[in-house]
Amino acid sequence: MNTTPPPASATTLADPDTPFAVVDVHKALRNIERLATRADRLGVTLRPHVKTAKSPDIAALMHGGTPCPVTVSTLAEAEAFADGGYTDITYAVGIDAHKLPRVIALLRRGVTLRVLLDSREQAAFVADASREAGLAVPAQIEIDCDGHRGGLKADAPGLVDIGRILHEAGCLDGVLTHAGESYFAYTPEDQRLAAKNERDSAVAAAERLRAAGLPVSTVSVGSTPTAHAAEDLTGVTELRAGNYVFFDLVMAGLGVCRMEDLALSVVVTVIGHRPEYGWIVTDGGWMAMSRDRGTAGQAQDQGYGLVLDLAGNPIPNLVMSAASQEHGTLTCRDGADLPNLPVGTRLRILPNHACATAAQHRGYHVIDSTRPTDPAPAIQAHWERITGW
Amino acid sequence: MNTTPPPASATTLADPDTPFAVVDVHKALRNIERLATRADRLGVTLRPHVKTAKSPDIAALMHGGTPCPVTVSTLAEAEAFADGGYTDITYAVGIDAHKLPRVIALLRRGVTLRVLLDSREQAAFVADASREAGLAVPAQIEIDCDGHRGGLKADAPGLVDIGRILHEAGCLDGVLTHAGESYFAYTPEDQRLAAKNERDSAVAAAERLRAAGLPVSTVSVGSTPTAHAAEDLTGVTELRAGNYVFFDLVMAGLGVCRMEDLALSVVVTVIGHRPEYGWIVTDGGWMAMSRDRGTAGQAQDQGYGLVLDLAGNPIPNLVMSAASQEHGTLTCRDGADLPNLPVGTRLRILPNHACATAAQHRGYHVIDSTRPTDPAPAIQAHWERITGW
Repeated sequence: MNTTPPPASATTLADPDTPFAVVDVHKALRNIERLATRADRLGVTLRPHVKTAKSPDIAALMHGGTPCPVTVSTLAEAEAFADGGYTDITYAVGIDAHKLPRVIALLRRGVTLRVLLDSREQAAFVADASREAGLAVPAQIEIDCDGHRGGLKADAPGLVDIGRILHEAGCLDGVLTHAGESYFAYTPEDQRLAAKNERDSAVAAAERLRAAGLPVSTVSVGSTPTAHAAEDLTGVTELRAGNYVFFDLVMAGLGVCRMEDLALSVVVTVIGHRPEYGWIVTDGGWMAMSRDRGTAGQAQDQGYGLVLDLAGNPIPNLVMSAASQEHGTLTCRDGADLPNLPVGTRLRILPNHACATAAQHRGYHVIDSTRPTDPAPAIQAHWERITGW
Repeated sequence: MNTTPPPASATTLADPDTPFAVVDVHKALRNIERLATRADRLGVTLRPHVKTAKSPDIAALMHGGTPCPVTVSTLAEAEAFADGGYTDITYAVGIDAHKLPRVIALLRRGVTLRVLLDSREQAAFVADASREAGLAVPAQIEIDCDGHRGGLKADAPGLVDIGRILHEAGCLDGVLTHAGESYFAYTPEDQRLAAKNERDSAVAAAERLRAAGLPVSTVSVGSTPTAHAAEDLTGVTELRAGNYVFFDLVMAGLGVCRMEDLALSVVVTVIGHRPEYGWIVTDGGWMAMSRDRGTAGQAQDQGYGLVLDLAGNPIPNLVMSAASQEHGTLTCRDGADLPNLPVGTRLRILPNHACATAAQHRGYHVIDSTRPTDPAPAIQAHWERITGW
């Protein structure tokens, strides 16, 4: 592990002041290996989305020293990963002309930074900026496979025009789609169908461009649910997923992972009891967990998170059901009695949405759940996050 | 203004890459003055809660050079404000024994840092730590006035015992309550009643302690809605409020402020259009706005925020109705036609909950809406936020 040593004074999860975020590196590595094996079997390049962990240390777990292709959600991530030696980066948010100088600066540093777009206007300003800069900004056309967000339908009239504008400036790299609606595919069969539809849409768009004489190099698909459900990715060149490094309660609720695969949690301390209301109060509120309520629409609403003891064992029926800025409220489900957790007890909360919870923290204390957890899991390292835009 | 000069290259809201947070210093000052005038009239000390802005620069707007009493939500805030010369600080989250060394370190620096508690266990460890350190950690007993979160009811059996444990160690400072349920008081009359109840609960608890021969110095109440509704604070010594510096759509929905008082917004850029769905797509998602949906339960649900043009003029009927990590979706209400906002157009989004949205940013670009806004509001300064715990 490429690690920063933890401060000498913080040696176990009992030591740093709460709340703080913890990554179990054993679980993260297992999650990473699982998807890497799938991508190999499917015959595609895996291009992890680093927006979840935003950590070069965690990205380093994915490759043996040679930086892998990555996807980013901000130029700040692109710049930080470029600083870390990554040279193959896709910026998977529709490009804005104002951001092109930073894109071009990265290209001039030797980084292949691909941008995303879905309109003639964007294709025109990317082509113009490329000509002006004397280099080609590689661009992918965003394809909408499920009405989730941006993109063009594979059969949209404008697709070939956009491809042509890009191609004439040497910018056309390929097509990219994201099955965002797969987060609401509640059965394995629905997830397989979402994966098939994601693949079919991307490949159909690529074929339309090729039929018009335009070269399509990259055919990129992916979301954490579809990446784990895809059975055939013929015609696809690369697979993207981000959340899978940590997984979370939303993914467990979809059946994409098991509860024991969740690699991110937040350590909190019990600071009070309201037995008359059935509440245990902690010092971990939405500032530590985020306001994300991603399981609210699932069969089992997990509130703001499920509760583990400090060693990582689930405390049955205990859920974080309410949050203010620096307070969390734990309650019991199904009429269970509140466990005896005195003031000062440390707990770990499994989040609804790892991307959102991780974003509330400046970094992660790193543990390995295969090592002894008595008296508390030892902190192996502290890994910083990339922030801002 | 005690300001950091903006980078020479960023002179108006058209310049920095989006998304970013903006504070209108004119509106913030007006909001600050409004509550300061109320507190004066009510005859109480105002102790602003700095957890919303987490910015010494914004706190400095509240006083003429001599740091005022403040409330904090984390010890990181307490330490940063102590570094800035603030010597009268209340840490308004129930204390955990593990955090006492940092509290005692601040007391040794000459900062009067008050802690909060609501149990015998906490009173005992605060008393023990005080004796061991050879100083008194000033402590307030949290009173629950409305069943919102922590605290003891004013008539709870344990109140006097806790007071006695604290008093014997020289630690008893007073009582503190927070009418958290006032965020759901939808009429001026309900807000006045919440303020009266908040005051009555705190004063009743103080009187019980005094009747038992215990000295009560501080009687602290406050929340943004009740601070603006209170008509009589007899017996109260200080008023706390935090959100009022910025206000937000939740407060506007409660009628505590007007829409034109909102001092915080987030600048985003249009990156796409999906006319077939009635969507405008921006580069401001939940990473920029937070996942807070505080208006979801109000009469008018404002989605993830309302939309202004870059100069600050409302765009009627346009609302940010959906968010992913780095994408926002704008839609029109009431069947209105989508305005013509080409790719590259910059907009400002007014947030549901200023505390949560501000927390997504490392700092604020500062404008003054009384100055010319053509071609775009000039950036007067950049103010950093305090992060972490």
